[in-house]
Amino acid sequence: MKAFMDEHFVLETKTAEKLYHEHASSLPIIDYHCHLDPKMIAEDYAFDNLGDIWLSGDHYKWRAMRTNGIEERFCTGKETTDWEKFEKWAATVPYTMRNPLYHWTHLELKTAFGITKILKPETAREIYDECTAKLRTKEFTARGLMKRYQVEVVCTTDDPVDSLSHHLALKKEGFEIKVLPTWRPDKAMAVEDPETYRSYVEKLSDVSGVSISTFADLIHALRNRHDFFAEAGCKLSDHGISEFYAADYTDHEIESIFNKVYGGKELTMEEIVKFKSAVLYEGAIMDHEKGWTQQFHYGVLRNNNTRLFKQVGPDTGFDSIGDFTVAQQMAKFFDRLDINNQLTKTILYNLNPKDNDMVATMTGNFQDGSVAGKIQFGSGWWFLDQKMGMEAQMNSLSNLGLLSRFVGMLTDSRSFLSYPRHEYFRRILCNLLGSDVKKGLLPASELDFIGQIVENVSYYNAKHFFRF
Amino acid sequence: MKAFMDEHFVLETKTAEKLYHEHASSLPIIDYHCHLDPKMIAEDYAFDNLGDIWLSGDHYKWRAMRTNGIEERFCTGKETTDWEKFEKWAATVPYTMRNPLYHWTHLELKTAFGITKILKPETAREIYDECTAKLRTKEFTARGLMKRYQVEVVCTTDDPVDSLSHHLALKKEGFEIKVLPTWRPDKAMAVEDPETYRSYVEKLSDVSGVSISTFADLIHALRNRHDFFAEAGCKLSDHGISEFYAADYTDHEIESIFNKVYGGKELTMEEIVKFKSAVLYEGAIMDHEKGWTQQFHYGVLRNNNTRLFKQVGPDTGFDSIGDFTVAQQMAKFFDRLDINNQLTKTILYNLNPKDNDMVATMTGNFQDGSVAGKIQFGSGWWFLDQKMGMEAQMNSLSNLGLLSRFVGMLTDSRSFLSYPRHEYFRRILCNLLGSDVKKGLLPASELDFIGQIVENVSYYNAKHFFRF
Amino acid sequence: MKAFMDEHFVLETKTAEKLYHEHASSLPIIDYHCHLDPKMIAEDYAFDNLGDIWLSGDHYKWRAMRTNGIEERFCTGKETTDWEKFEKWAATVPYTMRNPLYHWTHLELKTAFGITKILKPETAREIYDECTAKLRTKEFTARGLMKRYQVEVVCTTDDPVDSLSHHLALKKEGFEIKVLPTWRPDKAMAVEDPETYRSYVEKLSDVSGVSISTFADLIHALRNRHDFFAEAGCKLSDHGISEFYAADYTDHEIESIFNKVYGGKELTMEEIVKFKSAVLYEGAIMDHEKGWTQQFHYGVLRNNNTRLFKQVGPDTGFDSIGDFTVAQQMAKFFDRLDINNQLTKTILYNLNPKDNDMVATMTGNFQDGSVAGKIQFGSGWWFLDQKMGMEAQMNSLSNLGLLSRFVGMLTDSRSFLSYPRHEYFRRILCNLLGSDVKKGLLPASELDFIGQIVENVSYYNAKHFFRF
Repeated sequence: MKAFMDEHFVLETKTAEKLYHEHASSLPIIDYHCHLDPKMIAEDYAFDNLGDIWLSGDHYKWRAMRTNGIEERFCTGKETTDWEKFEKWAATVPYTMRNPLYHWTHLELKTAFGITKILKPETAREIYDECTAKLRTKEFTARGLMKRYQVEVVCTTDDPVDSLSHHLALKKEGFEIKVLPTWRPDKAMAVEDPETYRSYVEKLSDVSGVSISTFADLIHALRNRHDFFAEAGCKLSDHGISEFYAADYTDHEIESIFNKVYGGKELTMEEIVKFKSAVLYEGAIMDHEKGWTQQFHYGVLRNNNTRLFKQVGPDTGFDSIGDFTVAQQMAKFFDRLDINNQLTKTILYNLNPKDNDMVATMTGNFQDGSVAGKIQFGSGWWFLDQKMGMEAQMNSLSNLGLLSRFVGMLTDSRSFLSYPRHEYFRRILCNLLGSDVKKGLLPASELDFIGQIVENVSYYNAKHFFRF
Repeated sequence: MKAFMDEHFVLETKTAEKLYHEHASSLPIIDYHCHLDPKMIAEDYAFDNLGDIWLSGDHYKWRAMRTNGIEERFCTGKETTDWEKFEKWAATVPYTMRNPLYHWTHLELKTAFGITKILKPETAREIYDECTAKLRTKEFTARGLMKRYQVEVVCTTDDPVDSLSHHLALKKEGFEIKVLPTWRPDKAMAVEDPETYRSYVEKLSDVSGVSISTFADLIHALRNRHDFFAEAGCKLSDHGISEFYAADYTDHEIESIFNKVYGGKELTMEEIVKFKSAVLYEGAIMDHEKGWTQQFHYGVLRNNNTRLFKQVGPDTGFDSIGDFTVAQQMAKFFDRLDINNQLTKTILYNLNPKDNDMVATMTGNFQDGSVAGKIQFGSGWWFLDQKMGMEAQMNSLSNLGLLSRFVGMLTDSRSFLSYPRHEYFRRILCNLLGSDVKKGLLPASELDFIGQIVENVSYYNAKHFFRF
Repeated sequence: MKAFMDEHFVLETKTAEKLYHEHASSLPIIDYHCHLDPKMIAEDYAFDNLGDIWLSGDHYKWRAMRTNGIEERFCTGKETTDWEKFEKWAATVPYTMRNPLYHWTHLELKTAFGITKILKPETAREIYDECTAKLRTKEFTARGLMKRYQVEVVCTTDDPVDSLSHHLALKKEGFEIKVLPTWRPDKAMAVEDPETYRSYVEKLSDVSGVSISTFADLIHALRNRHDFFAEAGCKLSDHGISEFYAADYTDHEIESIFNKVYGGKELTMEEIVKFKSAVLYEGAIMDHEKGWTQQFHYGVLRNNNTRLFKQVGPDTGFDSIGDFTVAQQMAKFFDRLDINNQLTKTILYNLNPKDNDMVATMTGNFQDGSVAGKIQFGSGWWFLDQKMGMEAQMNSLSNLGLLSRFVGMLTDSRSFLSYPRHEYFRRILCNLLGSDVKKGLLPASELDFIGQIVENVSYYNAKHFFRF
């Protein structure tokens, strides 16, 4: 029987142990997609206590707590203290066995704080106190944690209208870890609500200095900001979309649609799809011009709980996996770019694992030999960012593409304590390869090369692919 | 090499063995969803022979026999004897290796009759005779079998127009096992065929004593029966639906649609969907008022074989797994109830495993901390009620929700010999947990708590959740 | 640690080893579906070198090379030599670890050429030279390879207008291996492009000697060719379709649609679907009359890359897995045939594994006891023709149908070196069964019968089912 979460955690074979400890464990982290607040890095935020760093903003934990019968005030409530919330979380932890939260929780306790105790009601107070004491030291600030985990680059997620002031300040200061912005123009195509959209366009006009009264102006303003992001070191774009949009449209149609929505009128579903198709396309062209990598996170069903949305807002744990049909539009969207050789490096992240094999083969349609692994099947995302989810993604990628060319893991997280997910991923990767060697499905004679694959997927592929 | 189906059947680790034998094997059974005939319990049906109890009504076995090249007369035919049918079934059994039927068959032989021989042509006669002899004794009547398997509660599946006479008789008699009805109002929304629908509404009018000429009357009559079911001890509703129905509609529209179909006119697809949306919604409100648990079994493609439907009728083995797109309507349906805090405890059963992860995350959208595990992802259903199907369901639930709060297994069966499926389920559950402990993915130090999870999922969660 | 690809390759238990070596390894091959060129067999093509036999036409390898950053000229280019291409392929091979190409490559080297070295840049030249030398001997011609692998029957894939001259020549010659045509009438329903369609119909008219000016004529001409194929020994039809077509239509409508498209006008989507429904139905009737087996390969998204399609044409590695919704139309199509008892033996191959369980249960809807395994769930196809893909297909089939009645493996290949895929499949089959025995999920006492299942799935089921 293996001990829980010891040094060989997840590693079921000797080869897996060797691969992990000799080829993966000491490599730095390139976290090319996350939702960290750059302000907290720029100001080197100091955490007040374990509840502060662990529970505020963590919708994964809130979902588990609600499912465990914990009232909302202990999740998002302002009337309860950090300790009170933590106490409820600690009571929930044993009930999360087999959920990734159980592993994340203990891996974070171990790697950040050196605690190997199991979190449960009986240990809640001592763990809270010990972690809180550490968090109040210099080593455990936002920057301290990033250094602790050997972070080399992080890419945050930013709106085109963002001033990027914190990114620029960090650059100017010469902070040793690269903190780069990512271009996420979701709001530039969120035409469902004309009023919100107009106010967004006005903000965009302000920050870009481009007066916007046509679709062409809109694109001009976006391009202006795109240039600005590039100067700030941006190398990636990202899009949160339900489905792929590749409707046919004419310039004239798009101008009319823009006028209509900007004039305050609700659009038809057909108009919305055409408009999104146009904005997505124009952005992809810009990304290609600059040699960026474009990312697509698709397939979420958002804000499903109106009652709690009204009470606690978006991104609080009421989103879920959709079952959209997307393959044809996805192929059409990429083909439209590729036909003029304007398809840039791309990463596709699906939320419904039923799409794993479809996506893994979709990438192959647009591999053209220009860049190794040009079109990437992204690592298990959000709900799929757990052991079985990552294994399923790596198995599909292996069977239908080249695992060896994978750019690997990212945290996608809002928390400074999520870096051990890279360790978790690397252990899982090594375990898959080690198991294949043990079974004679991969040749033990090629262990050096397999070790190289581990290093590449853990670190070097991302380093070479993104060219930060 | 493990012996076939010995005491450690399915249990691949020492921990799994310990969990099963110390925490699961001796617990009673709460079978909260089945299709047993209450009359057979009330009258304590005595089985004539092994063919009688095993083959009549068992469409799983018929499907396997047809696939094995056995003629229909040995499945559903009236012209063949029970023994002749059984002989063909016995000849088919070896060909079902790796199908759940192979395990079910031998687990039933072992636990009901103490027979550990393999069923095949060579053993058919002796097994038939031995079982038949036992079946003709007092211990092996309908009630005898329920007691043998330590059944505490069963919930049958009943139409709103049902008199529940057998349930009431059993209650009056004070039968030690609770036999409760379940509200299954599928026919109240089956408006596809106006003639059949009208005759159903007339029957409903009769039994409820409510004269029905409007939709409001229909709901009034249903509510009357709903109250009657509640008095008879009903705690659950159930719905067999292909897809989820959450179309927008007005009261006026629904009244018109009701008039139209009641007047004998065929409805359009849009009208059918609106009507079903309304009936489903009104029923859900009633369930919430009474604190019942509502169940949805969705995703079947029914009666696909017209030729054999005409010959042998429905529920004879010609249904299959559909590939409907349902997530958006499902979310909308639940949100419509939740927005006024009228969403009652719910269990969602999908038939296509491609939906496992979608459903597991859908439940999370409506967990609000009011009841632990308020929205449940139901156990592997029908075609998915087999080892890999149950493992897949429990893995999705574990990764995306809380396995610890799962209300667990049900037979969904028409047979008094299906209770060992609870044993099968418990073994699979223990095996998953034991394997995680062995691999160091769960801490061996917490074995007491893990044992508690086993007990809860096997029995106590259901006991507390349904409040029978 | 198991050695890579030794005699027990893939076999993880003693029982699996026994099953494979005693029951599977020495059986002949019935390759009932492939894309070999009959001309190469008739003329007993002699390969010039390893690049010639391995790289020309192999879109699997090209996809992997492009993903690995290899330029197109080393894939499909005419300006590079076979050796130059091979050198790039050899450099790519290590990067395909965990992809089926890695196993196929080394299994082909081992079983055809007796080479157990790992292919990589360092070994590229010696392997190329050794294989090339062998390929230039009599033993390694097209026919030589077929004999080497104990091939008993191959069924090629042929258009109704094909003269079948090579099949007829082989038959006349009395070549010891049966080389039979398969009826693949895809072009007879490819009405998307009126011009191409008209020219196809004219060709059909020529070869059949039937003057075609109506839909009835078209069917008459097809039937004429169908008879001709039957005379040439054809026993199977095959259809490459995206989705299933079972729209309602009248004869009058179909005649009009035929006139329209034959007259050069583009059809609406609705007309296309009706027309395809009619052609598919009429062909299925012919197949039933002759007792053939009809095959459906559905779910591909074809020619997704327009830029490279223009450069290198179809079937060059730019197809992928679609996500079509098909269950209802599929059921309707088969029911329409079955209702008059005109549904012939059928094999269903899905390309998206999300459909595995749906398809496995769909087959059950139309099993009627007339033929064991009448409706088959086809082996993992194309992208799914790999270890996990085949395991998933066999697990679904086992859980939801009868593995024991499975007609088993086919290569679906364009290459004379693909026969070891039958070995790969048999090893995987034995491994699944052996693992179940080891775990006590199947009884070791029934090993003889399990061995019989292995023999049947490997060879005898196909032999009896197709009646070549």
